[in-house]
Amino acid sequence: MTVSWVTASELGNGTVRYGPSPDKMEMTAQGTHTRYDYFNYTSGFIHHCVLRNLKHGVKYYYAMGFGHTVRTFSFTAPPKPGPDVPFKFGLIGDLGQTFDSNSTLSHYEANGGDAVLFVGDLSYADAYPLHDNRRWDSWARFVERSVAYQPWIWTAGNHELDYAPEIGETVPFKPFTRRYRTPYRAAGSTEPLWYSVKVASAHIIVLSSYSSYGKYTPQWTWLSDELGRVDRKATPWLIVLMHSPWYNSNNYHYMEGETMRVQFESWLVAAKVDLVLAGHVHSYERSRRFSNVAYNIVNGKATPVRDLDAPVYVTIGDGGNIEGIANNFTEPQPSYSAFREASFGHATLEIKNRTHAYYAWHRNHDGAKATADSVWLTNRHHLPTDDSK
Amino acid sequence: MTVSWVTASELGNGTVRYGPSPDKMEMTAQGTHTRYDYFNYTSGFIHHCVLRNLKHGVKYYYAMGFGHTVRTFSFTAPPKPGPDVPFKFGLIGDLGQTFDSNSTLSHYEANGGDAVLFVGDLSYADAYPLHDNRRWDSWARFVERSVAYQPWIWTAGNHELDYAPEIGETVPFKPFTRRYRTPYRAAGSTEPLWYSVKVASAHIIVLSSYSSYGKYTPQWTWLSDELGRVDRKATPWLIVLMHSPWYNSNNYHYMEGETMRVQFESWLVAAKVDLVLAGHVHSYERSRRFSNVAYNIVNGKATPVRDLDAPVYVTIGDGGNIEGIANNFTEPQPSYSAFREASFGHATLEIKNRTHAYYAWHRNHDGAKATADSVWLTNRHHLPTDDSK
Repeated sequence: MTVSWVTASELGNGTVRYGPSPDKMEMTAQGTHTRYDYFNYTSGFIHHCVLRNLKHGVKYYYAMGFGHTVRTFSFTAPPKPGPDVPFKFGLIGDLGQTFDSNSTLSHYEANGGDAVLFVGDLSYADAYPLHDNRRWDSWARFVERSVAYQPWIWTAGNHELDYAPEIGETVPFKPFTRRYRTPYRAAGSTEPLWYSVKVASAHIIVLSSYSSYGKYTPQWTWLSDELGRVDRKATPWLIVLMHSPWYNSNNYHYMEGETMRVQFESWLVAAKVDLVLAGHVHSYERSRRFSNVAYNIVNGKATPVRDLDAPVYVTIGDGGNIEGIANNFTEPQPSYSAFREASFGHATLEIKNRTHAYYAWHRNHDGAKATADSVWLTNRHHLPTDDSK
Repeated sequence: MTVSWVTASELGNGTVRYGPSPDKMEMTAQGTHTRYDYFNYTSGFIHHCVLRNLKHGVKYYYAMGFGHTVRTFSFTAPPKPGPDVPFKFGLIGDLGQTFDSNSTLSHYEANGGDAVLFVGDLSYADAYPLHDNRRWDSWARFVERSVAYQPWIWTAGNHELDYAPEIGETVPFKPFTRRYRTPYRAAGSTEPLWYSVKVASAHIIVLSSYSSYGKYTPQWTWLSDELGRVDRKATPWLIVLMHSPWYNSNNYHYMEGETMRVQFESWLVAAKVDLVLAGHVHSYERSRRFSNVAYNIVNGKATPVRDLDAPVYVTIGDGGNIEGIANNFTEPQPSYSAFREASFGHATLEIKNRTHAYYAWHRNHDGAKATADSVWLTNRHHLPTDDSK
């Protein structure tokens, strides 16, 4: 487990103490730290510390800030992996730090997931003058109430690029990669923006919509290898995260994901991916199982068709953002689209065993526990029935 | 003009002296140098020196190696830009350092161009064990006879990636970017892999097939801006270079360029680009003026159609490489393909004035001056007639 924190004005102590009770934090780990400059902003000391030798399923308390202000948090290590191990993921995207962002996070907390699959666009600092990086700090304070207590799996969105040549900032993803660490080396990746994690009965693959993915590139090479490493017997559920959706029938960002779809869709269909999660579009949409992989330039076969080997595509970019809701859908609703609605909210995925998972979308204005869309998903490897209504 | 050279065992002198006669090299410029390690290889000192205050159309002599072994070369600065300034480009791709590579370069020299538009895949060092970087050195020695005497415009190919995590080399384009400099800053770019140059009556845009080009990424942003800077009154000919072709009817690398095509083709058609050059496929192909930009997911319109606003696409990846010729075309020849042949060779583009340019492909086995395919191209801005037979 990676623990990250920022000390504003002085470096402080990089040690994290942890253990199974708040009175018994006898394990220690030593973190590293970094800082970065962004135009007229200088970050605090950003600490990252990896806690090792954790036991599956055990609740740990951890503390840092020794010698100054000690703060204590806790998390439960994910259960021992296995094909029928249940787990509940929260699915959140484009969160931001608005009133709606707060509603979404509160509702997610009320729904009680074990970990969050976050599909990109965290702070929207780039929406403020000069990409005001203090918004990266305030966003971390806002989400601490969840992020400090359970794993969040990070995906890079366009608002993580912070590419601003007009103010001399030309290194893509600078604040994001300095602040949020991913376990990419353990996944055989060479860049933090694409990687995988195995959690309970799920194999989660995270892709970067804003990195190169042409044939021969590092991300292409890694994904090709990674799909070969997936073992559906050990981790039946195969889930892919990215920011820019491949199937989106909203006029906002329509077809922006095409360039990546034409490169990778056939691989995901061949791998029988269960679920693809994306954000970017500030509304909600869930697809039926469709694919569009027959096209060969000259055959004209470029229409999405029913395909039970294909993933369900979910766009969950309705976390709160700062730019408002995307309420302009294409008409008529295309046949690949099962449900779509322009509302803020989040989703949950409750994996029950190797064959069944309960997926639900919770829109904010119905309150914390109300479900506006739901479907039982059956596993594409172990029970590939027609589950998308 | 950037002059680059390598000193193997000692740093030596970074000064270049230059002037309009070999006896009168009174101007001086001071270069910078770099080195790099690649697995078990350490490069020599790689010098780069920019010669400034050159006069258009003047022949310059230049020399370096002072205090050790002085070597003198020469080049003619491109003519003063203007809409009707004639210029002859050599078009070469996938050159390598084989017998066929040597034939191609010799034939190009015999055909006498003023500058080379090189569409990627230089040395094929990565085809040797451990990406033997001595092959980068030997390639530079091989092409010196042309590269030292006229401008070569560089495009990055897949064989420039040198991405080899199995030997710990995970920085894409490391040898290429250390050895070959591009004037990207002058073109408003923030990376050396995409940029533009204006030569005579042509505006040349170089793209990177193996970098990110999704919406919001640096290359996407730059190209969007760059197309707005094109002035067809000043530089009537708009030419785009990339490595992986968008229209290729060879089974080798078939559809590899799709991911970039769906992202950028509509821009190039809207900009009325005259000519798109690519390599990668080790054969020759020239397209008619076609586009495939009507597709919107649900309309099924994904077939290439005749379009006089569209570029002519030329695949010229037949320089010599190391992997052999690509002699397996799709059948039947699609209607967008005007001419295709699996032979080594190169092409030339002779711009005559703002309306006409003579394009020709020269295959090697016919000898130096033989032309196997040729077409008069008319400018898409100034005389957009139906010129693709």
